[in-house]
Amino acid sequence: MARVDVLVIGAGIVGLATAFHVKQQCPSCSVALVDKHPGPGHGDTGRSAASFRAFFYSRTNMALAATSIAFYRSIQEKEGFDLGMRFIGYLFLLSRDQYRAVEPVLQELRRRGLGYRVYSPEELEEGLGLRTRLRGDEEAELMELPDVEVGVLAENAGIMRPERLVEYYSSRITEMGVKTMYGTRVERLIVEPEEPLGLSYEPLPWQRARVAGALTSQGEIRADVTVVAAGAESPALLDPIGVDVHAKPKKRQVFVVRASSPGLQRLLHAEGFNKHGIAPFILLPKGVYVRPAPEDNAFWVGTSDHLGRPFRWEPDPQPEEPFYTYGVYPVLRSYLPAFEGARPAAAWAGFYDESIDGQPVVFSEPGLVVAAGTSGSGIMKADAVGRIAAALALGRKKATLYGGEEINASILGTRSRQIEDEKLVI
Amino acid sequence: MARVDVLVIGAGIVGLATAFHVKQQCPSCSVALVDKHPGPGHGDTGRSAASFRAFFYSRTNMALAATSIAFYRSIQEKEGFDLGMRFIGYLFLLSRDQYRAVEPVLQELRRRGLGYRVYSPEELEEGLGLRTRLRGDEEAELMELPDVEVGVLAENAGIMRPERLVEYYSSRITEMGVKTMYGTRVERLIVEPEEPLGLSYEPLPWQRARVAGALTSQGEIRADVTVVAAGAESPALLDPIGVDVHAKPKKRQVFVVRASSPGLQRLLHAEGFNKHGIAPFILLPKGVYVRPAPEDNAFWVGTSDHLGRPFRWEPDPQPEEPFYTYGVYPVLRSYLPAFEGARPAAAWAGFYDESIDGQPVVFSEPGLVVAAGTSGSGIMKADAVGRIAAALALGRKKATLYGGEEINASILGTRSRQIEDEKLVI
Repeated sequence: MARVDVLVIGAGIVGLATAFHVKQQCPSCSVALVDKHPGPGHGDTGRSAASFRAFFYSRTNMALAATSIAFYRSIQEKEGFDLGMRFIGYLFLLSRDQYRAVEPVLQELRRRGLGYRVYSPEELEEGLGLRTRLRGDEEAELMELPDVEVGVLAENAGIMRPERLVEYYSSRITEMGVKTMYGTRVERLIVEPEEPLGLSYEPLPWQRARVAGALTSQGEIRADVTVVAAGAESPALLDPIGVDVHAKPKKRQVFVVRASSPGLQRLLHAEGFNKHGIAPFILLPKGVYVRPAPEDNAFWVGTSDHLGRPFRWEPDPQPEEPFYTYGVYPVLRSYLPAFEGARPAAAWAGFYDESIDGQPVVFSEPGLVVAAGTSGSGIMKADAVGRIAAALALGRKKATLYGGEEINASILGTRSRQIEDEKLVI
Repeated sequence: MARVDVLVIGAGIVGLATAFHVKQQCPSCSVALVDKHPGPGHGDTGRSAASFRAFFYSRTNMALAATSIAFYRSIQEKEGFDLGMRFIGYLFLLSRDQYRAVEPVLQELRRRGLGYRVYSPEELEEGLGLRTRLRGDEEAELMELPDVEVGVLAENAGIMRPERLVEYYSSRITEMGVKTMYGTRVERLIVEPEEPLGLSYEPLPWQRARVAGALTSQGEIRADVTVVAAGAESPALLDPIGVDVHAKPKKRQVFVVRASSPGLQRLLHAEGFNKHGIAPFILLPKGVYVRPAPEDNAFWVGTSDHLGRPFRWEPDPQPEEPFYTYGVYPVLRSYLPAFEGARPAAAWAGFYDESIDGQPVVFSEPGLVVAAGTSGSGIMKADAVGRIAAALALGRKKATLYGGEEINASILGTRSRQIEDEKLVI
């Protein structure tokens, strides 16, 4: 039977960041990190579109993303540890109605000092080969695709390589002495009364109960605090002990299209959006995104679906060919004719861990910290989420984000959750 | 294939109230109510402790309960339809620390005109045979049972017979022409694009999708609006279509103890708390409650457990004997020696449908209204919840509660949920 001060379950980006910050802030704490996979970052961390942006209306949202991105940037630029971060920008392509709806929000963001640039339909046509006028196109009208009236490019945004961030955190925690246990499956969390009587039926309702560790495939690990950072699999650990993480898994699919034609080459190396001479991350109307993957000479494309797509976790999610063919491709080629005829060369699927409001969920119960619900923005917020989870694990009321901003450690809790609505919803 | 304007799934108290108010407000609407059970109210509606109180701090909480209770009272007193309502009061027994913590809340409630009476330890000893001083009692000290410093009796509170309320709503909806379909199991909700293309893979992510009805054991029922009011079973219907109700089932157990001894007879017929000469509903420290059931010459007793009790629905939940013996009884007999040696003569189990904040969850999606998450106070709030769900089903922004108060129909939604914290937490 092992015993540690802090046991972290899940070596995805959130669990890694949490273990890192616990050990940073409490070097004398013994910390173990367990994951069923053979190494870190093998779950949904590596299955995202790996983009980031510090461009949100909600101040909480913004603080989580902006400080995490600044931390990652400091790793890459000051520590010289390449995370593959490229600030290529995040381009929202908006219809007239969408632009009208978000214009006040954009102006408020500009007042707060957030940089963005506005592109006209002509500039978008010229720079990206974008079709901005779809009127008269029968297929586009069937799909109710709106004309593009304006492009809004958020500048503090781009793409990165999550496996490098995983490598950074995992090498640092190993140096600091965190015990990593890969290939270790958690069977269940252990709940016990603070003062056991030795009855088989405990904890009794009048007893003060706490999480005392986990039973794993390597035996029991007892801990003062157990951190559940198991992403979309968190409910499978927490439901049996009666703790609701208020987030559920929904499938996410990413398709890789090689830039094999001259048209796609031109798009990939579009000029006029950033200093890299690469197309920005593009969000088309109807939620279809195009993420340049210059190192692969490719694009990653996808979209998310809502009503009708089940909340259901499965061990080996597979991408669905019709999702690309009927769900993504018709929108893609309507706006970006360079994609005409393009088929995916590869694809993968993972899970969004969708919370009640799209924000991470971080809270504590006796002996337990939960850090999950990252809702598709886990990588870009992981460092801040890890700092908040570490603060709760160490019994602190405040967490200090990168750059020094203090934040209430209970802000992402399920009970007294106080998060402004995100008004930049496109 | 059937077709209705509004299909309500679940003939528990919430589904019944919703069908009633839809039909009241829209007599020309065709409404169907389906339930897998052979009749209405056969699920968790009939498995609660069947008590009510209009004594809450949160104004939302208060509005839902107070207007529902007033409506039920009007049924009983004005319509002459006996619901078994007896205003016996709800007695919180508080330790010194608990009283200190809630005293400002109580004073605020008094300022708002909510009546309550305060009882001294001597009055409680005299009136109920309550032991208020447990110091020196080894078992009580092991359980950390505090001394009782004060009793607070909320007056607009009591007990009722949910099966009578079920009977009221179900007879009224039958008169009004709601088509009830009992013994009808819902296999799944139907999600379709607004404008289908005839592909097997629809709805596609760019299509506007909606709930178009349900596939049941009696065939397909198509509806403009489908209301899911399936209580703790709602996630089993909603997860497959990717809608999160943000509530989960947790087992609730109620034990019946006959008032067979002179001591329990005296307690059951305690004087000085209400005009009925019946003990009030008593909430002991540690959450154990004692609910008089004078028509059965008995008490219903129970408590709720939290950390360690799984979120898990099962078709035929059973009460657990050790839950009474070790979880309820030791607290019960420590405070109320009349229960010494008392064993349950009967017991049952059902589910709490626990939401994020203990408040009901009511929201709409295209073609869908969800009304669930009643968290153990479904009966006492059902009429208001039904009015809000009916308003959403009829496409209205406001609901009118009994007595005329208008309330925003989105107030109990998951997205822009705006509910004050309930500070009367004991």
